[in-house]
Amino acid sequence: MRRFFRGVSLLAGAVAILAGASGSAHGEPLASWNDGTTKSAITEFVQRVTTEGTPDFVPPPARIAVFDNDGTLWAEQPAYFQLLFAIDRITDLAPQHPEWQTNPLFRAVLDGDMQTLAASGEKGLLELIMTTHAGMTRDGFANVVRQWITTARHPTTGRLYTEMVYQPMLELLDYLRVSGFKTYIVSGGGVEFMRVFAEEVYGIPPEQVLGSSIKTEFVMLDSGPVIKRLPEVDFINDKAGKPLNINRHLGRRPIAAFGNSDGDLQMLQWTAAGAGPRFCLFVRHTDGEREWAYDRESHIGQLDKGLDEARKQGWTVVDMQHDWSVVFPE
Amino acid sequence: MRRFFRGVSLLAGAVAILAGASGSAHGEPLASWNDGTTKSAITEFVQRVTTEGTPDFVPPPARIAVFDNDGTLWAEQPAYFQLLFAIDRITDLAPQHPEWQTNPLFRAVLDGDMQTLAASGEKGLLELIMTTHAGMTRDGFANVVRQWITTARHPTTGRLYTEMVYQPMLELLDYLRVSGFKTYIVSGGGVEFMRVFAEEVYGIPPEQVLGSSIKTEFVMLDSGPVIKRLPEVDFINDKAGKPLNINRHLGRRPIAAFGNSDGDLQMLQWTAAGAGPRFCLFVRHTDGEREWAYDRESHIGQLDKGLDEARKQGWTVVDMQHDWSVVFPE
Repeated sequence: MRRFFRGVSLLAGAVAILAGASGSAHGEPLASWNDGTTKSAITEFVQRVTTEGTPDFVPPPARIAVFDNDGTLWAEQPAYFQLLFAIDRITDLAPQHPEWQTNPLFRAVLDGDMQTLAASGEKGLLELIMTTHAGMTRDGFANVVRQWITTARHPTTGRLYTEMVYQPMLELLDYLRVSGFKTYIVSGGGVEFMRVFAEEVYGIPPEQVLGSSIKTEFVMLDSGPVIKRLPEVDFINDKAGKPLNINRHLGRRPIAAFGNSDGDLQMLQWTAAGAGPRFCLFVRHTDGEREWAYDRESHIGQLDKGLDEARKQGWTVVDMQHDWSVVFPE
Repeated sequence: MRRFFRGVSLLAGAVAILAGASGSAHGEPLASWNDGTTKSAITEFVQRVTTEGTPDFVPPPARIAVFDNDGTLWAEQPAYFQLLFAIDRITDLAPQHPEWQTNPLFRAVLDGDMQTLAASGEKGLLELIMTTHAGMTRDGFANVVRQWITTARHPTTGRLYTEMVYQPMLELLDYLRVSGFKTYIVSGGGVEFMRVFAEEVYGIPPEQVLGSSIKTEFVMLDSGPVIKRLPEVDFINDKAGKPLNINRHLGRRPIAAFGNSDGDLQMLQWTAAGAGPRFCLFVRHTDGEREWAYDRESHIGQLDKGLDEARKQGWTVVDMQHDWSVVFPE
């Protein structure tokens, strides 16, 4: 009898090991997703493309999944986190720049005058970004971001920004990877900004992060070559720029795409238009209590045309409030 | 006694299986490399970075190796193969373009008048490239290249172009991959041109091919979205462009770089300047009999400054004639 129980316990151990090998690093796959049509749409798609010997089977190298970042993997309110980084950075650098005190744009940043800041429009924001993102080497910039991301706090929740990622999306990334997918970030955010934390936070290595970029220059110093960041836009990785950049970097079409705004629409359309099974999903921000509620009318992360297209095409739309048992990691 | 021999034979079988698992797909690793300082420089470097528990150990995700293509992985004489593709393409399309008969540049192509063609300079070549590489979708272009690469023959050897790859370099790619390296192409050639054959010929998937590019446009047709190729240069992946593009795509520095011309110099310098063990290698075309002999004075694949720098820095220089027992696959 004791022998029998030992046998059962050994068997249970083996099952646990096997489950660990093909399951999620967080235990049960998709643990923070409530049961329902959204969760089953995901698992049914993955089942479909990973079942060998069926017409829908997709070999692992073609299992490419692309994710937007702001509003899809982490929050984006009350402003894109990269803009909050730029604002923090200007505050830090202000003592070395007395001329900023008399410049209306920089004055607005230093005074926290968001109205003047918003009124400065795209031109103003671009100037802030260039001031804080260019004029240094790529290594120097990475160090500044690393310092900020490990210490700065979100203005309303007081959390580290890396704690404002969506727990269900972390589980989804894991679930796809253990199912043989290669996961990519394809974001309007700056590529060198995201690469600093993408590997640790999302498990996505730098070469699988695509983003907007500024121009760079190769400079040979006495101490050796450096890559210098120039105050000029190179590529805006948004809207139609997303499929173009995916094509440029990967040379193949994803089979699954995840976004949350109209800026992701073309990426989802490009993904959906390939032959064979495809999966497209929008995260809809419906939870004003645990996160923020916004969509068609929002200035940040507007989801309007995308929502119409999702309905027309039968894409999956996450209702945060109902589909997620947890929003942020505990 | 028979039992003893059976034991030996079983043991030998096990050894062969183990060797197969960590060796080369072509049998003995680097089989076409003659023994000597070049071959041992390669194997010593790989040994160094893959031996766990030593200060020089490099974890697999950081084992990035970058390879130039023209003149490094395949031949580039009497002209870059992609230019020969453009010439063949113009010949094919000429019946649909009667206006080319009176255009001096296109006339020169159709008459095989290489002197006029060369005299047309960069502007002329660019026009030929744009005429043959733009104005269609990315899928349409890939089909044209696929058709050409599987049928066209090299003007002097009569071989398929994919048979003009260097056998020792194929073995080197294999050897690095079984040693946990991720191999990339970083070439001045067109990225969408190379991606058509890189996976089959070199074992390098499309997302690990970096090259020059033309601009593209996302167009929504009634039949769905397409990516259209525009007749405008986007990025020239040569000289300082190589490290910049590596940084843009990978976000990390390679630990090994392989080239054959001054166009690769900055890529090797950028690779060499990182901390820890680094490996830089130039292929020198010294074999006028089995291949072509050219370096400091050549208009194609000039290796002049690079050769000086290699000597100064102690980089490895392949002497094709002495270091390679075979040049092209048999």
